[in-house]
Amino acid sequence: MNVFYSTDIQGDKIVLKDQEAQHCAKVLRKGRGEQIYVIDGKGSRYTCEIKEAQRSSVELTVLSSSFAEANPLLPHLAFGLIKNQTRLEWMLEKITEIGVGRITPLICHRSERRSIKTERIEKIIVSATKQSLQPYVPIIDDPVPFKDYVVSADRSKHFIASYEEGAPDLGRIIKREQPSVILIGPEGDFTDEEVTKALADGYLRVNLGSSRLRAETASVVSLTLMGLG
Amino acid sequence: MNVFYSTDIQGDKIVLKDQEAQHCAKVLRKGRGEQIYVIDGKGSRYTCEIKEAQRSSVELTVLSSSFAEANPLLPHLAFGLIKNQTRLEWMLEKITEIGVGRITPLICHRSERRSIKTERIEKIIVSATKQSLQPYVPIIDDPVPFKDYVVSADRSKHFIASYEEGAPDLGRIIKREQPSVILIGPEGDFTDEEVTKALADGYLRVNLGSSRLRAETASVVSLTLMGLG
Repeated sequence: MNVFYSTDIQGDKIVLKDQEAQHCAKVLRKGRGEQIYVIDGKGSRYTCEIKEAQRSSVELTVLSSSFAEANPLLPHLAFGLIKNQTRLEWMLEKITEIGVGRITPLICHRSERRSIKTERIEKIIVSATKQSLQPYVPIIDDPVPFKDYVVSADRSKHFIASYEEGAPDLGRIIKREQPSVILIGPEGDFTDEEVTKALADGYLRVNLGSSRLRAETASVVSLTLMGLG
Repeated sequence: MNVFYSTDIQGDKIVLKDQEAQHCAKVLRKGRGEQIYVIDGKGSRYTCEIKEAQRSSVELTVLSSSFAEANPLLPHLAFGLIKNQTRLEWMLEKITEIGVGRITPLICHRSERRSIKTERIEKIIVSATKQSLQPYVPIIDDPVPFKDYVVSADRSKHFIASYEEGAPDLGRIIKREQPSVILIGPEGDFTDEEVTKALADGYLRVNLGSSRLRAETASVVSLTLMGLG
């Protein structure tokens, strides 16, 4: 059954709007009486029947609903902002599919970008959440300077990926039972000063294998290892 | 030092052509007397000095060279061809960065594409090989029908990723010490008949976690787990 997203849920009435309405009524040509799923991105999934379908809005009646608790073990990714918008968006789509609880864009010394297109990125994340049938839309923070973030991370395990001969491989030491955060550098990696600061604040330096990975690939690889390794 | 690719190596003379020459002479404005690395994608890396740099061809003199043995443990990916060219190219770039020995495109029952743009894809793979500083360009086969491939795979461990409640997670059972092949389905996944055929031929069915992953994400996730997990 097709999955849609809405935050406009009032009792047993749900309304799909904008892209969601268009996708339902125009692209998939769903009509009165048909059933669909709706998620709110906060754990609830509703089985709904279409009451009225138009391109601009689709009215639904809730038939039943279920709720999934949030998974406190989903990893937290804090990544240095990268310049290339396509690579940034691709990375956010993929880590959402794989499973991430929270995403913090970091403004690092070598970041050539200091802001994100919030609305566009939220659409990508919502779409990937639906696609991968996950009950929660990951939290995405506003960009924050590296030095402010590093001291405030509140997970029990803290990693920083920055290749060093002899550092442990993340895939070998990660335990899925611990809520973890990992820092991934921007293009050109962290500066030595940034690594030193993170280590002083209790982060463990890890490698992601022996290949030199692009920044966005490193994010996807580390989330894979933290979630599935 | 910048890394370039050439297969035109004769004794101590190497010539860069086409895109490689343009990138060296025009984009990076390298000139006579400067040093660069050249890889042949077959294990050799040459330290070279530029003899003459033009946009159409750059002539080099080899100063020294080193050779790395091929890694027989690099995984083999056989994936169902997907329709979307951008997603296909992205996937090939990422698995090359992460590390793959051989890539076999499969024509599956649900594949909406039966061929690949070989020249374009080879460029992407060579570029990712250079980017990630790997000594070997992965082998990419011509597309082959699923049923012909399954019986001919010559690795010691055979996996097929197709979600089933109770099947083991790849990340939990993979051992890096075994040369492995994994089959990843196209959009819409393998048919039941395809899974049955692979199981009959000795493949082990595995899950890639609990999220529903897009076809191209499943390839990247499985290569990550096989190489780094």
